[in-house]
Amino acid sequence: MDHITEILIQLFAILVAAKIGNEIFRRLGQPTVVGEILGGVIAGPAVFGVYEVNAETELFAEIGVVLLLFQVGLETRLHELLRVGRTALMVGILGVALPFAGGFAAAELAGGDLTLAIFLAAALTATSVGITSNVLRDLGALTSRGGRIILGAAVIDDVLAIMILSVASGVAAGSFEVVNILSLLVVAILFIGVVVIGGTRILRRRRSILTDPEFAETPFLPGMIVMLGLAALASLIGLAAIIGAFLAGMVVGESSERHALESEVAPVAAFFTPFFFGFIGAQVDIAGLANFDALMLLIGITALAVATKFVGAFIGAIGQGRARAALVGWGMVPRGEVGIVVAGLGLSTGAIEGEIYSVVVGMAIITTLIVPPFLPALVRRATTNSEMEEAAAAGPTPGVEDDDDGVRNVDDEPESGPS
Amino acid sequence: MDHITEILIQLFAILVAAKIGNEIFRRLGQPTVVGEILGGVIAGPAVFGVYEVNAETELFAEIGVVLLLFQVGLETRLHELLRVGRTALMVGILGVALPFAGGFAAAELAGGDLTLAIFLAAALTATSVGITSNVLRDLGALTSRGGRIILGAAVIDDVLAIMILSVASGVAAGSFEVVNILSLLVVAILFIGVVVIGGTRILRRRRSILTDPEFAETPFLPGMIVMLGLAALASLIGLAAIIGAFLAGMVVGESSERHALESEVAPVAAFFTPFFFGFIGAQVDIAGLANFDALMLLIGITALAVATKFVGAFIGAIGQGRARAALVGWGMVPRGEVGIVVAGLGLSTGAIEGEIYSVVVGMAIITTLIVPPFLPALVRRATTNSEMEEAAAAGPTPGVEDDDDGVRNVDDEPESGPS
Repeated sequence: MDHITEILIQLFAILVAAKIGNEIFRRLGQPTVVGEILGGVIAGPAVFGVYEVNAETELFAEIGVVLLLFQVGLETRLHELLRVGRTALMVGILGVALPFAGGFAAAELAGGDLTLAIFLAAALTATSVGITSNVLRDLGALTSRGGRIILGAAVIDDVLAIMILSVASGVAAGSFEVVNILSLLVVAILFIGVVVIGGTRILRRRRSILTDPEFAETPFLPGMIVMLGLAALASLIGLAAIIGAFLAGMVVGESSERHALESEVAPVAAFFTPFFFGFIGAQVDIAGLANFDALMLLIGITALAVATKFVGAFIGAIGQGRARAALVGWGMVPRGEVGIVVAGLGLSTGAIEGEIYSVVVGMAIITTLIVPPFLPALVRRATTNSEMEEAAAAGPTPGVEDDDDGVRNVDDEPESGPS
Repeated sequence: MDHITEILIQLFAILVAAKIGNEIFRRLGQPTVVGEILGGVIAGPAVFGVYEVNAETELFAEIGVVLLLFQVGLETRLHELLRVGRTALMVGILGVALPFAGGFAAAELAGGDLTLAIFLAAALTATSVGITSNVLRDLGALTSRGGRIILGAAVIDDVLAIMILSVASGVAAGSFEVVNILSLLVVAILFIGVVVIGGTRILRRRRSILTDPEFAETPFLPGMIVMLGLAALASLIGLAAIIGAFLAGMVVGESSERHALESEVAPVAAFFTPFFFGFIGAQVDIAGLANFDALMLLIGITALAVATKFVGAFIGAIGQGRARAALVGWGMVPRGEVGIVVAGLGLSTGAIEGEIYSVVVGMAIITTLIVPPFLPALVRRATTNSEMEEAAAAGPTPGVEDDDDGVRNVDDEPESGPS
């Protein structure tokens, strides 16, 4: 059998497994994304081994999550994101600081060396926004304030994560320089700033390349080019490719052709995203977790990962009221493919060993699987409360109870437009 | 730079190059597909080397042509294809026999050994229907009688090609058995028959999995699953994956959800096909052709490839009138990726050497580039003639000249429905 045939069979198998998982979970009234991941577990190396994790299936998974975040970006307006900027910054910082501190302390207490402690801590910090934003889209809650805080915090989270990873890699390689870390920070912030401000201005002011009917009948291919270009560029400077894709979506979404683009991107994303969810499932290493110690370690680390991320992000968003803070905290919990990538990096540099690797990957998958089932209820609670708040903010009208007035006015951020 | 980053950059580069080539050729009023291939030449290894030919870019190219043929299949109705079945069979057989005989004779006259002669002959036979069907779609001529003959002949062509390739590989490996060739033929015909007749019946009779609203909101993902599955299966039994994809499209196209599916598949195909055209361009090996002998050989083999395929297919379709036969003959000329695959197989088995390989690949690309510019005029001529014929067939009405009546009735195939 030649290579292309093999890959075609594997892609077929992933799609079928994801589709079956999706259908079963839809009929059970559960989040379909969990079904798709479990489909990946069953068809993947852990059970039937119909497909393997190789360069091609990984690429399809990566393009899948890149498209997912591009879609999310398309639906996100910059000025709405900036409105929740302060809260997102707090959520991002605290949501990184607590897991890092927790992971580091746990590793040190268990007697691990410094490199292991830093890598474990880094793996605990990295949020993967793909799963949460997928579920929020399905719930129509992506543009709610809670959704926007999560997206903004994910960008900050990722900037901090590359700095931590850079520290971790530097320590592992025995060469650690503060200058490198700072220059990384500057490059990351410059990238985000230039893309968002520059890109948005260009697309808002002139009709530009995207909407020039002389250049393209539809904005689809230019949009895909911007997406791949910024994803590659983000990846090149050390950020996650999905952050570049998210920014690309947000910038392109400022164009007047947004809706045409959205409807053309939808099938492409629908084709690719099952590969992403299936791929996460394929990483499950049941053999590596088949002893009591590893299982206990998995439970402990997963509990630590959930608790620290939730509490950190919750505190960061508490100014938005408890219901919304709970949604934000829970939405930041999945580590997904980002946690898996960090674990892989730790394994390849020798900082962590096979068993710890399996445990960290298991943690990344469990944190991803447990989040979606609870999101609908959290979104409902956050929405109900926020609607009451907004009605109240519009002025105390007769018939609207105004029971949390003082708190609301102090904590809400100013609803000013973009600068 | 990690591997995924590298691949993202390469995919970005191919899309940009293809898009620029497409735009330039569109403004020049030339077939855009030629521009996309030339974009691939310039960005690829032959000139700038922004991207390379690797497993990932090859996979994207393969999925691109698979989607292209799936789309073509969606627009092709089985009973219309069967109406031109006899002509397509003749075109397929003669369009394979002449190039094979020509290639074999030329190699023998030049003093090559038997293995070389068979491989060269095999490389000359294989038509790639991707390019022609893409141009015919743009011209709206895919469902014209000429278009249907080309599609039907391409299926027959591919069945014959796998038998020839199997003979060639057998001779190269020193083990050649008639039983193997015959069993290949039986499997290929069984595959095509079962898929087309079985699949069509299932989809026509019951609403089935594709259109069951309980199973899927849209037929898109089930359609993609059928496409990948049949492409993989075709590839597994030795047929080209694109033949499986074409059959999948034709079968799925019988469902009542055809139009919904077409509009969802269109952006996915638009995303992938530039990788296919760019990939063909990337195969150009200028260094391997940089001497006088190689160039002369290239010109000679290309002329032989064009002449034998055109004449064979033309004779096969002559019963349909000269204008249509010319369209069919010219439309079968591109060797495209199929010729490149055969050459690669010959190289890996040691049957052909580096220089001949470069020449055969060059022939495959040139035959692909020269076809599109002349198709619009050939389509116009074939359409005008056929409209006149059909008007005449409807009965001699006043004002319609009836100058080729006798010929038409003898040569036209019966317009009966499917059995």
